[in-house]
Amino acid sequence: MHKTEHTRPVTIAYVGGGSLNWATKLMGDLAQDGTVPATVRLYDLDHAAAERNARIGTRYAARSDTGAPVTYTAECTLEAALRGADIVIISILPGSFEDMANDIAIPERYRIRQSVGDTVGPGGFVRAMRAIPMIAEIGRAIARYCPEAYVCNLTNPMSVLTGTLYAVFPEIRAWGSCHEVIKTRKIMAYLANRRAGEVLYGYRDAKVNVLGINHFTFVDRAAVGGVNMMPAYLDFAKEHHANGWRESPLDPANEHDRYFTDSFRVKFDLSRRFGIAAAAGDRHLVEFLPQCWYLDDHAVWKFGLTPVEFRMRERQEKVNCADALDKGAELPPARASDEAIVEQIKALMGGPEHVSNVNLPNRGQFAGFEEGTIVETNARFSPLGIQPIVAGRLPKGLELLARPHADRQNALVAAVLCDDVDALLPLFVSDPLVAALPQNKATRLFREMVTATQHRLPETLAKAGGVA
Amino acid sequence: MHKTEHTRPVTIAYVGGGSLNWATKLMGDLAQDGTVPATVRLYDLDHAAAERNARIGTRYAARSDTGAPVTYTAECTLEAALRGADIVIISILPGSFEDMANDIAIPERYRIRQSVGDTVGPGGFVRAMRAIPMIAEIGRAIARYCPEAYVCNLTNPMSVLTGTLYAVFPEIRAWGSCHEVIKTRKIMAYLANRRAGEVLYGYRDAKVNVLGINHFTFVDRAAVGGVNMMPAYLDFAKEHHANGWRESPLDPANEHDRYFTDSFRVKFDLSRRFGIAAAAGDRHLVEFLPQCWYLDDHAVWKFGLTPVEFRMRERQEKVNCADALDKGAELPPARASDEAIVEQIKALMGGPEHVSNVNLPNRGQFAGFEEGTIVETNARFSPLGIQPIVAGRLPKGLELLARPHADRQNALVAAVLCDDVDALLPLFVSDPLVAALPQNKATRLFREMVTATQHRLPETLAKAGGVA
Amino acid sequence: MHKTEHTRPVTIAYVGGGSLNWATKLMGDLAQDGTVPATVRLYDLDHAAAERNARIGTRYAARSDTGAPVTYTAECTLEAALRGADIVIISILPGSFEDMANDIAIPERYRIRQSVGDTVGPGGFVRAMRAIPMIAEIGRAIARYCPEAYVCNLTNPMSVLTGTLYAVFPEIRAWGSCHEVIKTRKIMAYLANRRAGEVLYGYRDAKVNVLGINHFTFVDRAAVGGVNMMPAYLDFAKEHHANGWRESPLDPANEHDRYFTDSFRVKFDLSRRFGIAAAAGDRHLVEFLPQCWYLDDHAVWKFGLTPVEFRMRERQEKVNCADALDKGAELPPARASDEAIVEQIKALMGGPEHVSNVNLPNRGQFAGFEEGTIVETNARFSPLGIQPIVAGRLPKGLELLARPHADRQNALVAAVLCDDVDALLPLFVSDPLVAALPQNKATRLFREMVTATQHRLPETLAKAGGVA
Amino acid sequence: MHKTEHTRPVTIAYVGGGSLNWATKLMGDLAQDGTVPATVRLYDLDHAAAERNARIGTRYAARSDTGAPVTYTAECTLEAALRGADIVIISILPGSFEDMANDIAIPERYRIRQSVGDTVGPGGFVRAMRAIPMIAEIGRAIARYCPEAYVCNLTNPMSVLTGTLYAVFPEIRAWGSCHEVIKTRKIMAYLANRRAGEVLYGYRDAKVNVLGINHFTFVDRAAVGGVNMMPAYLDFAKEHHANGWRESPLDPANEHDRYFTDSFRVKFDLSRRFGIAAAAGDRHLVEFLPQCWYLDDHAVWKFGLTPVEFRMRERQEKVNCADALDKGAELPPARASDEAIVEQIKALMGGPEHVSNVNLPNRGQFAGFEEGTIVETNARFSPLGIQPIVAGRLPKGLELLARPHADRQNALVAAVLCDDVDALLPLFVSDPLVAALPQNKATRLFREMVTATQHRLPETLAKAGGVA
Repeated sequence: MHKTEHTRPVTIAYVGGGSLNWATKLMGDLAQDGTVPATVRLYDLDHAAAERNARIGTRYAARSDTGAPVTYTAECTLEAALRGADIVIISILPGSFEDMANDIAIPERYRIRQSVGDTVGPGGFVRAMRAIPMIAEIGRAIARYCPEAYVCNLTNPMSVLTGTLYAVFPEIRAWGSCHEVIKTRKIMAYLANRRAGEVLYGYRDAKVNVLGINHFTFVDRAAVGGVNMMPAYLDFAKEHHANGWRESPLDPANEHDRYFTDSFRVKFDLSRRFGIAAAAGDRHLVEFLPQCWYLDDHAVWKFGLTPVEFRMRERQEKVNCADALDKGAELPPARASDEAIVEQIKALMGGPEHVSNVNLPNRGQFAGFEEGTIVETNARFSPLGIQPIVAGRLPKGLELLARPHADRQNALVAAVLCDDVDALLPLFVSDPLVAALPQNKATRLFREMVTATQHRLPETLAKAGGVA
Repeated sequence: MHKTEHTRPVTIAYVGGGSLNWATKLMGDLAQDGTVPATVRLYDLDHAAAERNARIGTRYAARSDTGAPVTYTAECTLEAALRGADIVIISILPGSFEDMANDIAIPERYRIRQSVGDTVGPGGFVRAMRAIPMIAEIGRAIARYCPEAYVCNLTNPMSVLTGTLYAVFPEIRAWGSCHEVIKTRKIMAYLANRRAGEVLYGYRDAKVNVLGINHFTFVDRAAVGGVNMMPAYLDFAKEHHANGWRESPLDPANEHDRYFTDSFRVKFDLSRRFGIAAAAGDRHLVEFLPQCWYLDDHAVWKFGLTPVEFRMRERQEKVNCADALDKGAELPPARASDEAIVEQIKALMGGPEHVSNVNLPNRGQFAGFEEGTIVETNARFSPLGIQPIVAGRLPKGLELLARPHADRQNALVAAVLCDDVDALLPLFVSDPLVAALPQNKATRLFREMVTATQHRLPETLAKAGGVA
Repeated sequence: MHKTEHTRPVTIAYVGGGSLNWATKLMGDLAQDGTVPATVRLYDLDHAAAERNARIGTRYAARSDTGAPVTYTAECTLEAALRGADIVIISILPGSFEDMANDIAIPERYRIRQSVGDTVGPGGFVRAMRAIPMIAEIGRAIARYCPEAYVCNLTNPMSVLTGTLYAVFPEIRAWGSCHEVIKTRKIMAYLANRRAGEVLYGYRDAKVNVLGINHFTFVDRAAVGGVNMMPAYLDFAKEHHANGWRESPLDPANEHDRYFTDSFRVKFDLSRRFGIAAAAGDRHLVEFLPQCWYLDDHAVWKFGLTPVEFRMRERQEKVNCADALDKGAELPPARASDEAIVEQIKALMGGPEHVSNVNLPNRGQFAGFEEGTIVETNARFSPLGIQPIVAGRLPKGLELLARPHADRQNALVAAVLCDDVDALLPLFVSDPLVAALPQNKATRLFREMVTATQHRLPETLAKAGGVA
Repeated sequence: MHKTEHTRPVTIAYVGGGSLNWATKLMGDLAQDGTVPATVRLYDLDHAAAERNARIGTRYAARSDTGAPVTYTAECTLEAALRGADIVIISILPGSFEDMANDIAIPERYRIRQSVGDTVGPGGFVRAMRAIPMIAEIGRAIARYCPEAYVCNLTNPMSVLTGTLYAVFPEIRAWGSCHEVIKTRKIMAYLANRRAGEVLYGYRDAKVNVLGINHFTFVDRAAVGGVNMMPAYLDFAKEHHANGWRESPLDPANEHDRYFTDSFRVKFDLSRRFGIAAAAGDRHLVEFLPQCWYLDDHAVWKFGLTPVEFRMRERQEKVNCADALDKGAELPPARASDEAIVEQIKALMGGPEHVSNVNLPNRGQFAGFEEGTIVETNARFSPLGIQPIVAGRLPKGLELLARPHADRQNALVAAVLCDDVDALLPLFVSDPLVAALPQNKATRLFREMVTATQHRLPETLAKAGGVA
């Protein structure tokens, strides 16, 4: 690194710091990178989990004795974590796995299938109702204790929750970070390597112009090694759309893969039909579209539905693993994750500039979407801040499918923050997954779902369970 | 009438002047009004029909010997009709009734029911593909022969075709006129009279603020006699939404009524759910919404599906009737129709000012819809021209349902005028009535419909029938 | 009047109800009209003046024994005046005549001449600094005591103060009313009568499309009796621009006329140069333009500068006159004033619809100006509320001159309401009248003016007098 | 350079390829860089000059025998230069130095001083009238012969001419490149070095957020080595605004410096008053502002007025120098210029990404300016194209000064391209330098200037010299 591009010492507040997933990736990446002198304050409602992560983090930090020093603490209050922080990371679980199970199971009784259930559709909607008030509280605390901090939100539904942060504190410097698009960058690199006859490129060499909203993202320009990859990609999509494609075959014994990966059939089908690359994972893309397009035949389209029951088992394994690490088990081998967050932090603090696709309010970067809507495009991370890069506009056929979701998300945030309970049902029924129900059934579904989660809702919102 | 508000002599070019419907209303209204000295030039591809109407019009004109003189001629060319005209009226049939029958019947085989089939949905889409090139030709002729004329479009799909006129000749002074909203003004007057205990008001006394797109229109403010009628209306809607309401019972023997009227159940249900009045007829409203909301159960919701076969019979009766009039049968009694067109013409020419809801490009009158989109709001007709009145914004839940239709219509006009055949299918499949089909079926439906009407399409568009 | 267009009884709160000018016009107009059953509550910091007006008003009301009853009361508190009012009229004096004299005299020492000094220029700017906090307080009281009321602002600077009302209470139903444009409507009627060879038309028969900002307004379409008057007007302007024109010659003995009327030279010169009619009075138009265009040679351009000393004498006469009326002197003969306010109130309450040019936030009616800017265009008054009518766009050359004033007004309101004292000087120096000073002199001028009026300013703003 | 970031071979068409200034910088930079395999086609109306440059270029290319090969040709037609080019560079002289002398001298007789006279003010306006038709012709040729090429415009007035390219060919991939802002980046680096006590940084290490229009640019965020430099800069400006500052003292014997450099007094004065850094050179900034602000006292403000007579002498020297090089004189030593163009080309062709401030149509990157206006902000150069980076908004006080210039430039391009001669004078008189003239004088000035240059204008525009 050029001597003029060093990283200043940085204080990171991690809200949801007992996390078994993101927090450990951060610990690993900081250790692996070794150039960021950081103090990481972990805060979690489950304080013991934060403490465990602090201990594990300290072990990670110790591994890299030549790198910049990183220290971990578990904080007892949100204020203690936030006050004076340079960076805030938000990665919380809005509700329990039982809530998440309900988000999937209740709609299923109305024949609405959801592959993930955390973004749009009935599951995403009700999850948002739970999460918006929680995130709003965090946003207000940031306004109070560290208004100048950069804030990275990792929590889903990402658009809705990043929008909530801006709604309660418009000057916040927040972005939403999601790595879904890496899949598409990988395939671009793959195609470039195939053409070159040797492995020259990794996904970081694939430059892509991202446009869309989180989990419903597209790529209309791509280049690897200075070469336009869109023609090659579209040919490849045409060639493989009928059977799908995987770099390595699906191992039927690997439950995680079965539930979390896909075979590019949906991405290729959409790419072929709309003329640009669909970028997010198939499991996410399909939830934005009418049930009968893909979800009804998920086996044919070769993507998995993620059972919450599996998530619960997986979580237990992670808990066990964390406990083991805490008790001295060997740390996993040093390897950077695919997450961009450490690179983003470094760029903000004076390290090498970084461009990646993130979720930000529309300030002009995405034509066709309302000002202020949370949209996903590339942004430049530098000491000047996080600046969106103008991305252009979706083809009309895709804009027609994407924009109502964005408008609904805006309206949902506004309705929850204003306690406008009456506005919720009309928004709920207009989601394409719900729109396929007769109105009386859609109303019943909404009330059932709200009732099931009402203990997690502010009193006013909980009333929506019984609105006529 | 105040002496200072007289109407100047006016030359009216009527394109589609052989019409059995609108043209005769105009003749009757001009005779009934008696204050507009007019020369009406009828032009029709079916010249004999224009000539017949010219003769019938002359009879109407003769009836009013004290009123301003009106003369009728049948013109052989579009140019002869348009050159120097002050007003142009466009009322054409885009294709034959056989085409219209296909627009309904083919989707029906895919279980897509349409109550009218001339606005949105698969029927409206393919009708638009036929009509846009026809109207574009008329628009270009207006630009050439009478660029200063005021142009009233009466042809459906109204938004799309009014948009086509502006696309080919941006300076055109065109508006789209549609009387659907009168139903809602009538019910407002009815409720005011009921409260007064006597019949004080007619629909012209009901002032309403209209917002929407043609056939999917809403009213968020209404006043009769200076009194806000929205609360009374919403109460009435709540009271009657379960069973519907008709001022006079439906006569089962009256086929026309059965197929063209409704029982306000859809309007009341939407009003109740979204908090403002749904203004267009139920048969039109339902086509903008998912099949399962109303169309699947049209009998339960008490609105008729209009059989094209009935339209054919009805047309034959009208032809017979016109022939009879032509041969000397007694003219119908003098009575103004519900159409506003004569009032609109008078206001433009210096008569009393007139405000009514019409279809115009969005120049700021309708928030939430893209600039230039054809929207339906009130406008002021005066010698200063046709000026839209700022209408405000729909509740979010309705905007979510309406705006994608408007965006699709804009994109459809652009695609047809640029011969961008590949853009059509992605637009077609995103219509809510079509979105309920798996994509392979939707594609098949599109190709079948295009093939069925390909003899009416320009060569480039006809290719869409066989596009992969 | 049609029985269905009656006016409901109306409660009017008049803030500044001791006014010697507007309040008496209202009393006269209500009496003359005779159809509005009204309760008028007069509120004024000078309570005795409000009481006097209440007594005089009662005499007016008594005159019309057949008309609708009007009653007048003087209220002791703003709350008592506002609570439950249907209509609020705001007509206050922001500061004393001494303040106004300073607004003119101090800039004059820097060779900046102002003909009025209450709208833009240094005088308008500092007057706005005094008035914004006063109007903000009234706006907040309206939000509290009568949020549903229609609010007519008559106070200058009109754009800035109407903008202040919307800034503190965005849901307010306020408009700014100003009769400047009547002069242009009168000339349009004059030209139509001249052509007709007889007096057929009054200014109310002249329909004009107004666009601009208050006191810098233009007319790009005009019709009388259905005939387009723009060509005749532009010819007339060309014919008379060199010498000006007055319907009746200026009586040099009439001081008021000398100081308040003009000879149309500026209007005609601007009309000739920009191709549309300049509509406001010459004295107002010139203040928006560089000093050397007209103000430097006001005698050549034949418009008066209004001496504040004359205003003071005139005011004393009005006080004397009011005292006399209060003591029983004969009321002036019944004659409607040129003010539209009674017609506007009637239209809102259910009387005949009314269209006139008023000041409203830009909701789309005026292209080229920022959303929310207070602009002057026609609006429709009806029981549906006050709805702006889409007016189009100024020719570019005029937009370039007008828009920076509007942007400055927006920024000024925002800066005063946020106590952003540092933002004031940069705004002040960019006004074309001030921009002609070197920056050190402009800064001195600003501080002198602020210091002179600091006793009328909130403490924070007063600091601007000493800002480096 | 990473092997994956190589530059593809590139064909560069240089329009104005006989240039003595920019073209030689390009030759030097390509030789110095050594990584871009390029074919450079020089085209110039003065074909001999293009041939001379081709020969000189070949000498430069020969110097670097290890670098990528660069070849130079002189082309006889614009078509031959453009056909199939990857990159087009436009650097022409709109008119002769005699025209430029008139642009300065005629206004001077009206007491309007201009320091440069090529951007705004009367000189910039008339220069634009000459140049727009020339650039329009080049733009249409690009549309025809190399529509996919990236096009770099180096010709002034830059905003107007870049806007002309987009007006005649909306799909063009053009940007306007100008190095004015480097001065501000240098001072940021200087301040960072001063603080560090050693020379760590060059201007390339200074990251700045640029906003404005060409030659009236500002910087509201700056960082060197990850440290926010705005506070240090504003302190420095405050400290030195009274006397100015130069890194090295002005050598009075150096005529070029005397006429082309400044002492930062204007930049510092503006920075101090508006709170952000003024970024362009003083000589340019002052022309956007009223005469009395700075131009009237240029000696006091310590910036030079550039005499055209000096430009002529300087040009002759450059011709002599080129002739000498052509005859074998030693090439100047290898050293990269401050121009970013080679870095920009490399980034577009697959080399390292590059961010710099360039002139592009506003697609959302600059709030407060109309869509499509040519604005100057940072943009990302990569194989994905030239993508503007969202820059935010100017403080209101500056926006008020800048936006009318941008609006005037837009209107000027439209008027010239539509031959709307009548629109020109109203635009001309609204420029702040002209606005200080009474209108009859302003009109005379306009006609004199147009008449003086009429031999360079299309016939229609030349008429403006005699418009009433």
